[in-house]
Amino acid sequence: MLKLYWAPNTISVAPAIALNEGGVHWEGIRVDFATAEQTKPEYLSVNPKGRVPALATPGGILTEAGAILEYLAATAAPGLVPPDPLHAARMREVMYYLASTMHVNHAHKMRGARWADREESWADMQAKVPETMRASAAYVEHLIEGPLLFGAEPTLADAYLYTVSTWLPGDGVDVDEFPRLSAFMATMRARASVEAVWQKGMLS
Amino acid sequence: MLKLYWAPNTISVAPAIALNEGGVHWEGIRVDFATAEQTKPEYLSVNPKGRVPALATPGGILTEAGAILEYLAATAAPGLVPPDPLHAARMREVMYYLASTMHVNHAHKMRGARWADREESWADMQAKVPETMRASAAYVEHLIEGPLLFGAEPTLADAYLYTVSTWLPGDGVDVDEFPRLSAFMATMRARASVEAVWQKGMLS
Repeated sequence: MLKLYWAPNTISVAPAIALNEGGVHWEGIRVDFATAEQTKPEYLSVNPKGRVPALATPGGILTEAGAILEYLAATAAPGLVPPDPLHAARMREVMYYLASTMHVNHAHKMRGARWADREESWADMQAKVPETMRASAAYVEHLIEGPLLFGAEPTLADAYLYTVSTWLPGDGVDVDEFPRLSAFMATMRARASVEAVWQKGMLS
Repeated sequence: MLKLYWAPNTISVAPAIALNEGGVHWEGIRVDFATAEQTKPEYLSVNPKGRVPALATPGGILTEAGAILEYLAATAAPGLVPPDPLHAARMREVMYYLASTMHVNHAHKMRGARWADREESWADMQAKVPETMRASAAYVEHLIEGPLLFGAEPTLADAYLYTVSTWLPGDGVDVDEFPRLSAFMATMRARASVEAVWQKGMLS
């Protein structure tokens, strides 16, 4: 059985949604960030990067949310990558934006020590997060075709965008400013795959 | 004909290498960062994010290096994604790491204004770049099977890793410390696909 290492309210929720979309039976292993379990030898032997998600596959541990999502679509949860190459590229365009820009913007709230050493710098970074996350919300707003990102059929990018967008209120962004994104979030929240991650305590 | 918007020594070099690997005839459109062309209306009408690369396809403009690479492999330059899902996932694991961690580390040298407002914060970020990029080099060092990332056959991740690793000396990292990475860089440099981007002035 596939095992997903996860922590609440992190990007590890995205592969959980994809697993649920595919109707896959999977085992969740919660990593306790409150006790910094992700920095301790036991977890570092799973993922030396000290992050979640990590997926235990028959071929070993796989990391990076985007790569895990693609692997799931290619194996356990088919149908989540559009068959047309351009449509698939549009999906990946969103996924790479979320990974390299929007998630990175969010990370500057709590993880400034990755990129600077002084507390004053961390405070400066934190103060800018509402601005950068609002800009990211405005960017994705224009990508959403409705009701999901690319119409009615879910793709990997829906799981990714939903998870990242759950961070917006905590990052000081009023999602009501963005009608397409608000409708997208409501549509996703109503899916069984998303209800299940809430029930499991993966989002709060 | 596919048109690639690029600027020297940026991640836009990676799709150029993939295009060359596929023997594709393509047109390069150089975006002049020295005059901040990427921030002006003409280029923003191509890519509202104000970044390179952007690829003009028959289906419109596509952005995000990782998504462009996947699109090229699916259409113009086949053979650069391993057919086995786990191998493909390993390739994407590297690509997402480069996009969301190593490239982001590098960006803190010149692009601190994305994430903080004070000059002191930018200086703090810049000072940490040699440390974070050295850590990234150490991480990728252990992924390289040799002579390329995953043996003898090139994948999209080779084009991506080569491009990002050309930034290491300028970021204060001595690549000679990393024998596998050094050998990888030399192997890539000897490929016709990479020689062509040097000849074109895309790297310097």
